[in-house]
Amino acid sequence: MMQLFGYFRSSAAWRVRIALHLKGIAAEQQFRHLRRDEQRAPEFLALNPQGLVPALRLADGAVLTQSLAICEYLEETHPAPPLLPAEAAPRARVRAFAQAIACEIHPVQNLRVLNRLKALGLNQDQANAWAHDTIAEGLAACEALARADGAGPFCFGDRPGLADLCLVPQIYNARRFGVELNAMPRLLAAEAACLTMPAFTETAPERQPDAE
Amino acid sequence: MMQLFGYFRSSAAWRVRIALHLKGIAAEQQFRHLRRDEQRAPEFLALNPQGLVPALRLADGAVLTQSLAICEYLEETHPAPPLLPAEAAPRARVRAFAQAIACEIHPVQNLRVLNRLKALGLNQDQANAWAHDTIAEGLAACEALARADGAGPFCFGDRPGLADLCLVPQIYNARRFGVELNAMPRLLAAEAACLTMPAFTETAPERQPDAE
Repeated sequence: MMQLFGYFRSSAAWRVRIALHLKGIAAEQQFRHLRRDEQRAPEFLALNPQGLVPALRLADGAVLTQSLAICEYLEETHPAPPLLPAEAAPRARVRAFAQAIACEIHPVQNLRVLNRLKALGLNQDQANAWAHDTIAEGLAACEALARADGAGPFCFGDRPGLADLCLVPQIYNARRFGVELNAMPRLLAAEAACLTMPAFTETAPERQPDAE
Repeated sequence: MMQLFGYFRSSAAWRVRIALHLKGIAAEQQFRHLRRDEQRAPEFLALNPQGLVPALRLADGAVLTQSLAICEYLEETHPAPPLLPAEAAPRARVRAFAQAIACEIHPVQNLRVLNRLKALGLNQDQANAWAHDTIAEGLAACEALARADGAGPFCFGDRPGLADLCLVPQIYNARRFGVELNAMPRLLAAEAACLTMPAFTETAPERQPDAE
């Protein structure tokens, strides 16, 4: 059986939990506590030299890293239900939305960056404002990307996919940092559609065994 | 003909220039000057609400954004020569390496983030140290990822691909910020192999019409 190394509050690990659930793939969950730096322990660095969760160990022992690369692997090896549309240009739009979160928002507001800001002398309020502004600006662009695509209810069409599994954890973080979401009705509608599904609710941070 | 909106010094735009060149796809280049905030102009925001380069306008007028999503589109529509291996697990490893740069290093050291640091009162030396440390730590992980794969000479095997087109622009930035690369022989060898190829050298920042 696959093993997923994660952390309850990691947005990137949550993405993979959603993808596994949507596709009905069983995986044993292992947890590494990011606030205790367990992802920097030598035994974990041997698995993933980046020292990051998620990491997915396959049945043959091979280890895959980076949440979107893992999701693409799951898509290629377990095509149904699909996380991406069938045609190239729509696939690119869904991937761009996912990357607008995974490359532009999340890495700039994650725990590691906020800790670095504080190490440079900024206070907690300044770190929180940094995260708030990063998320607010990034999600405003995502709202425009989703609106350009059509009516939803999900980010792209009538089923959840790679965009949605990035969006829901990012909105969760947005609320933690007090981001005003009322100007993003298209994203809120996509989130609401997702949160009717066990793939999103049962994989939520507070439902994980390592939640605090 | 496709139109690529870029900026000579944008790592993400350079990635797409390399992909287009490797695949022999013609595209008209348009430039938006990031230090003059031209990517925030209304006419460009209408193309890409993220206000980022690169953006690729297809012959039918559709606009694709996010460099890795654009590269995946080019891979799906112009499969030869391939940017990814054929099998799912090796594809995931190449994508993970690309994302280790595109999601973990580049967004944390780009011009936008460094400008925000300075707006918070940090000086230029502190901003440069932030970029230096982000790149040094991230590339050390990439060195381990490439070493785990084998002998090269490219990041993954005997032809350049998605990993290499992320690596070469990131090493270019590493040098700008004085990152010591001697402990990364596998990455330096991959860069050297790439820099024998016009797809990497003719697309370099200093060879672009908007270079300063």
